[in-house]
Amino acid sequence: MAKSKFEYVRDFETDDSCLPNCWIVVRLDGRNFHRFSEQHEFKKPNDDRALHLMTKCAQTVMQELEDIAIAYGQSDEYSFVFKKKSRWFKRRASKFMTHVVSQFASSYVFYWKDYFKDQQLLYPPGFDGRIVLYPSNQNLKDYLSWRQADCHINNLYNTVFWMLVQRSGLTPVQAQDRLQGTLAGDKNEILFSEFNINYNNEPLMYRKGTVLIWQKINEVMTKKIKLPEETEEKEVEVTRTRTKVVPLHCDIIGDQFWEEYPEILAEDS
Amino acid sequence: MAKSKFEYVRDFETDDSCLPNCWIVVRLDGRNFHRFSEQHEFKKPNDDRALHLMTKCAQTVMQELEDIAIAYGQSDEYSFVFKKKSRWFKRRASKFMTHVVSQFASSYVFYWKDYFKDQQLLYPPGFDGRIVLYPSNQNLKDYLSWRQADCHINNLYNTVFWMLVQRSGLTPVQAQDRLQGTLAGDKNEILFSEFNINYNNEPLMYRKGTVLIWQKINEVMTKKIKLPEETEEKEVEVTRTRTKVVPLHCDIIGDQFWEEYPEILAEDS
Amino acid sequence: MAKSKFEYVRDFETDDSCLPNCWIVVRLDGRNFHRFSEQHEFKKPNDDRALHLMTKCAQTVMQELEDIAIAYGQSDEYSFVFKKKSRWFKRRASKFMTHVVSQFASSYVFYWKDYFKDQQLLYPPGFDGRIVLYPSNQNLKDYLSWRQADCHINNLYNTVFWMLVQRSGLTPVQAQDRLQGTLAGDKNEILFSEFNINYNNEPLMYRKGTVLIWQKINEVMTKKIKLPEETEEKEVEVTRTRTKVVPLHCDIIGDQFWEEYPEILAEDS
Amino acid sequence: MAKSKFEYVRDFETDDSCLPNCWIVVRLDGRNFHRFSEQHEFKKPNDDRALHLMTKCAQTVMQELEDIAIAYGQSDEYSFVFKKKSRWFKRRASKFMTHVVSQFASSYVFYWKDYFKDQQLLYPPGFDGRIVLYPSNQNLKDYLSWRQADCHINNLYNTVFWMLVQRSGLTPVQAQDRLQGTLAGDKNEILFSEFNINYNNEPLMYRKGTVLIWQKINEVMTKKIKLPEETEEKEVEVTRTRTKVVPLHCDIIGDQFWEEYPEILAEDS
Repeated sequence: MAKSKFEYVRDFETDDSCLPNCWIVVRLDGRNFHRFSEQHEFKKPNDDRALHLMTKCAQTVMQELEDIAIAYGQSDEYSFVFKKKSRWFKRRASKFMTHVVSQFASSYVFYWKDYFKDQQLLYPPGFDGRIVLYPSNQNLKDYLSWRQADCHINNLYNTVFWMLVQRSGLTPVQAQDRLQGTLAGDKNEILFSEFNINYNNEPLMYRKGTVLIWQKINEVMTKKIKLPEETEEKEVEVTRTRTKVVPLHCDIIGDQFWEEYPEILAEDS
Repeated sequence: MAKSKFEYVRDFETDDSCLPNCWIVVRLDGRNFHRFSEQHEFKKPNDDRALHLMTKCAQTVMQELEDIAIAYGQSDEYSFVFKKKSRWFKRRASKFMTHVVSQFASSYVFYWKDYFKDQQLLYPPGFDGRIVLYPSNQNLKDYLSWRQADCHINNLYNTVFWMLVQRSGLTPVQAQDRLQGTLAGDKNEILFSEFNINYNNEPLMYRKGTVLIWQKINEVMTKKIKLPEETEEKEVEVTRTRTKVVPLHCDIIGDQFWEEYPEILAEDS
Repeated sequence: MAKSKFEYVRDFETDDSCLPNCWIVVRLDGRNFHRFSEQHEFKKPNDDRALHLMTKCAQTVMQELEDIAIAYGQSDEYSFVFKKKSRWFKRRASKFMTHVVSQFASSYVFYWKDYFKDQQLLYPPGFDGRIVLYPSNQNLKDYLSWRQADCHINNLYNTVFWMLVQRSGLTPVQAQDRLQGTLAGDKNEILFSEFNINYNNEPLMYRKGTVLIWQKINEVMTKKIKLPEETEEKEVEVTRTRTKVVPLHCDIIGDQFWEEYPEILAEDS
Repeated sequence: MAKSKFEYVRDFETDDSCLPNCWIVVRLDGRNFHRFSEQHEFKKPNDDRALHLMTKCAQTVMQELEDIAIAYGQSDEYSFVFKKKSRWFKRRASKFMTHVVSQFASSYVFYWKDYFKDQQLLYPPGFDGRIVLYPSNQNLKDYLSWRQADCHINNLYNTVFWMLVQRSGLTPVQAQDRLQGTLAGDKNEILFSEFNINYNNEPLMYRKGTVLIWQKINEVMTKKIKLPEETEEKEVEVTRTRTKVVPLHCDIIGDQFWEEYPEILAEDS
């Protein structure tokens, strides 16, 4: 059973290292989540349990993997942005993609019950992933803007669509026909005049999606210590600075976000 | 929020289609499974629960995804072989890799309790994956032989190593030193003379790993039917042919396996 | 002027090795050869000088580079097939492509006057190239058949087209209109009934293109030698076996060619 | 001869488009130019005829191809930098490489006699090429600096080496031994003390290589025109602005060059 006789097959592996000095984005999507969300009775148009679970999984990915500078999620997708200078796994594309989606998928099942309580998970879900490189900061910002604009467009549509179905009793086909060819302004108008809903007052998480960034957190802990000259332990308060993944629901298309968190795009990041 | 202004970022995605008429292998490995197996008290050198769970996940992958002709697993790794002629997702490498590892990872958590019972899963595990193309049947068979030869070499080593530690009371370092430079024959001899173990009698699953193939199964089912001319339902037996993923623990290095299952490599498969 | 400070830029080069055990085809095309052929007064529909020069360049490529098993040319294109097992330049795609086209291009100018005599070369021509991998022998044969079928279709069209222009006095647009929608049979019929030409009697080089293969040639040379016991040199005949690139104008779509030259596709070639 | 039956082979071609918004560098090297330069009696360490011919070929490449912003050459190599925003041939790597090397190679033979006069070209030379992407302007400048630093190091070495051989009568092996382990300062010292040569007075073209950039040139031409009210033609002077490829022999490592020609790196270039 000479292993060496077969080892030549390793030469068929190809080098898939990502070009240096580019942002590496891995975007993950739920597989067949339309069906999955129906089978698990997701609330329409937005299910808080599902959105929070997605974010919990994305946080786990950021904490377990290395060099992720920022992540952005909406609906059943999440994008993870690895630093330009990352040397993790020699920048091999397959490593980035598979670590992201496998960690996300196992987390989804692992944390399911924390969010869905009595709603049983019926089967293990799948996710797919892709990798894209962006050479400049502007390209990266435009990528994230593209996803957030997509979130807005879909959420506005879904909000009106499900109002028409749930409140006005239209069938899905009728609701679709009603919205055919309408512009954003038309949809806002329907929401306001027919359902008394001001779209701008809808929750930010629905309208903007979720941004995950690293932030320094000061934690005050209570610790028991025994000083040399004393015989008894005593409790003291200790302040510790930790870096944590924090979710935000804010606009990332305009400049304000990037001015507020310049470290995300900083050259030496 | 004009989405179109940002859509140019899609042009940065690259086409990663696999060369046609080649076998596509996706191999998956557990991430940091050395640590994982210790934390979850895996039995050494082989834990049946862990091996059966791996195989359950691999079966799920074969059933949920398309065009997988055969899979082979050992230890914390599994290789999935997609058919030469597969057109699934236009043969895009990223799709193959991410669907395999995400489905495997979510299944691992989902089915954990069926195999590990009271042993709690402490955190969601990660897996990595890679993709390799093999142009000829011989290349593919050599790839699978390479993995099975690897299984044999590792399992023989581990079997002796853990005997020395568990039965002879050596420390891991001492056991390692003892085995330094030994050949297969030496290891067999230690097992036999010191522990009265004939390595060839060790379970096939440990020595050969697990092969997953599709097999036609005749299922006899009981069905209630009501014939037109009768008033009461009556039970009849119905035989149904289904295709199922079946685990085998056999040699795949020699010709016998491939002669017995010629359909696996068949040109039009 | 520390070179080392800048050397990091080498990390941006990517590995473009071709998958092992595949045929590597480099196809080269003349750049803007429609214009080039007009400016250099190529005879229409086929110019023997131009075709022979193309073949001379292709022979030079086969002799100067390594591991080319067969080449096929027609019109202003040539395909070079590198052996499946070739390890030349670690199978790097860029090396294969650039060596082929640069050697071809320099040879085109170098040998121009041998074929075009007083017809001056007005400017240095350009060529483009691409690389394609074929895993199986059947794929490779189908590739070459594709190019030869293309040769046939184009040459039949061009033969009728130029007859209509040169002999019947049609304008190019009129000739094009006349041929619009005609099948092969129609074109043969026009040639025969209007110009008394049996297409099958047209030169093989025009109808089949040119195949270049390696053949063993016995050369009889006259050599002067001086035997030890003699004082004078004397002439003897010596037979030497050389391997030479030989042009053929034959069908390569059917089996006959491949049966006659089995060494081209031989596994260990 | 159904072409369509074989057309499936086109699916084996892969998309090799370069990542958008990156500088695309194609570097070309002479193949076996050590031997070539000996056979064609190049003057050592630098042959003006050969260097000027290389530059003539590079100018031709820049004029015939599209979107080349700058080129840099030394010895038997030339680097061509395509604009970040170039959409030429959909940014396909194979197109960029093969057009560059084939145009260069045919030009080399075509213009040979203009530079080498009675020195016959013995055979058609080959060139190889590679392609590298650089995401940022700094990366590109560092690439060009790397090549110019290489030029300096090699030229200083070669200048001393050939002095030792040509003037001091050392054999090549002796000269090599003498220079083993010497630093730049040592080599300058040998040149000065033994051969009375101040390296800094050596020609810039040898020390810095050749930079090719586009420059606007005002050309004054004499043109014959006939004004409507007159019967005779008369000569007038016309000033025309043309863009021309201009060679420079200057430092491109420092900032001065890039400040003088900011348009080369300009974002919208």
